[in-house]
Amino acid sequence: MSLPASGEVDPPRLPSRPLPPDATHPPFARQMPQTSHPLRTNMAQSTDRLPRQLAFIAELDKLKGILRQTRLIGGSRRENSAEHSWHLAVMAVLLGEHAAERADVLRTVKMLLVHDVVEIDAGDAFCYDAAANVGKEERERRAAERLFGLLPPEQGGELRALWDEFEARETAEARFAAALDRLQGLLQNVHNGGGTWRLHGVTREQVLARMDPIREASPALWAYVLGTIEEVYAGGEVLDAGSAA
Amino acid sequence: MSLPASGEVDPPRLPSRPLPPDATHPPFARQMPQTSHPLRTNMAQSTDRLPRQLAFIAELDKLKGILRQTRLIGGSRRENSAEHSWHLAVMAVLLGEHAAERADVLRTVKMLLVHDVVEIDAGDAFCYDAAANVGKEERERRAAERLFGLLPPEQGGELRALWDEFEARETAEARFAAALDRLQGLLQNVHNGGGTWRLHGVTREQVLARMDPIREASPALWAYVLGTIEEVYAGGEVLDAGSAA
Repeated sequence: MSLPASGEVDPPRLPSRPLPPDATHPPFARQMPQTSHPLRTNMAQSTDRLPRQLAFIAELDKLKGILRQTRLIGGSRRENSAEHSWHLAVMAVLLGEHAAERADVLRTVKMLLVHDVVEIDAGDAFCYDAAANVGKEERERRAAERLFGLLPPEQGGELRALWDEFEARETAEARFAAALDRLQGLLQNVHNGGGTWRLHGVTREQVLARMDPIREASPALWAYVLGTIEEVYAGGEVLDAGSAA
Repeated sequence: MSLPASGEVDPPRLPSRPLPPDATHPPFARQMPQTSHPLRTNMAQSTDRLPRQLAFIAELDKLKGILRQTRLIGGSRRENSAEHSWHLAVMAVLLGEHAAERADVLRTVKMLLVHDVVEIDAGDAFCYDAAANVGKEERERRAAERLFGLLPPEQGGELRALWDEFEARETAEARFAAALDRLQGLLQNVHNGGGTWRLHGVTREQVLARMDPIREASPALWAYVLGTIEEVYAGGEVLDAGSAA
């Protein structure tokens, strides 16, 4: 892991200068309560932490413009990576009981909330398109350095470590997160009568290989996945093995 | 609180029947590991829990089609409530140090992930439009009963309670969540040169009243908010007090 040193990134500038006397709204300012946690607030006020955090948060808005191949249920439009990440986070809250290994819910949720953030710089590569995935790792590594580098170093480091962990898939949280990522795409394709599988001539074998992270992460979800894939392909709604483009 | 009784909602049907012998993919099926948590898996397998959870998760997809008034930074399109909820959840992970009261991060994140789910049935009412907000409470209460009622009762009850808690704004988590909800809209409007404030002739006083939950929830964020509102309105980029439509 190579985290940017704290001095490498210029802190972004946001309004943080002292307000002129008439800029405060007197009725509110007079009532401003003292914090009950001076230590935390001192940390927050002693540095450029808030401007850096707000710059990262504003930058995150761009993830809403990164489109995935999968379409929303009903097919109206392609899904973006921000709403996809929200969907996965809710799934992590709800489906933990089906995980084969005990996974910490908050760590899994945090991981899923940021797992696609690198696409802001690196874009989304369609999982079944080998050519689009060439160089992906290096593009995403550079994106992670720039994006997580916007944050105060210890927060950027935490999120970067969670992203590295997700990519490495070597912990219970990362394995379950990867399984949910696959399951969500499957649900959308199933509700869309085959969806991108049909559109791009993806074979049953390719789908099973793509869903493989679910197999070990959750026997219960894997049983559902097997039955569902069988149903979709048996229905002739998608191209079957051998007929892929 | 009125949670739907567990018998009131028909469990949705999803493929959960036993698989025919040739439906399992033999190389995978043979390697399927035993769960290390038999109790949790027994709970999951003993009922219709997974089909209910997956039906709720599929229903959530509709939140991606609920549009808010606020536009994405850059103005390309209006924001939907799913990607908005994602943005807020990340903010809760990052900005906790600025909260006046200690708030549990996981509870705050869960609350924000589901705080707008009722809009799937009830729609999004523009916060500055009094007429659109008539009857909103009753519409949202009915929506909460139907939507959270799709889940296994104890999970639906937990999320329903978190939504009620968010609405009541009487706990540290709910107050901080409300503050983040306001702050995110402010960030987008500020980055859009006034955004919906300008578009709808919202006055400085209306904005300050709308942002008021931030005042007590976070002195540090409130100082940023006051300075930022002053900057936007002083720049003449939005209509000032008295000139609202």
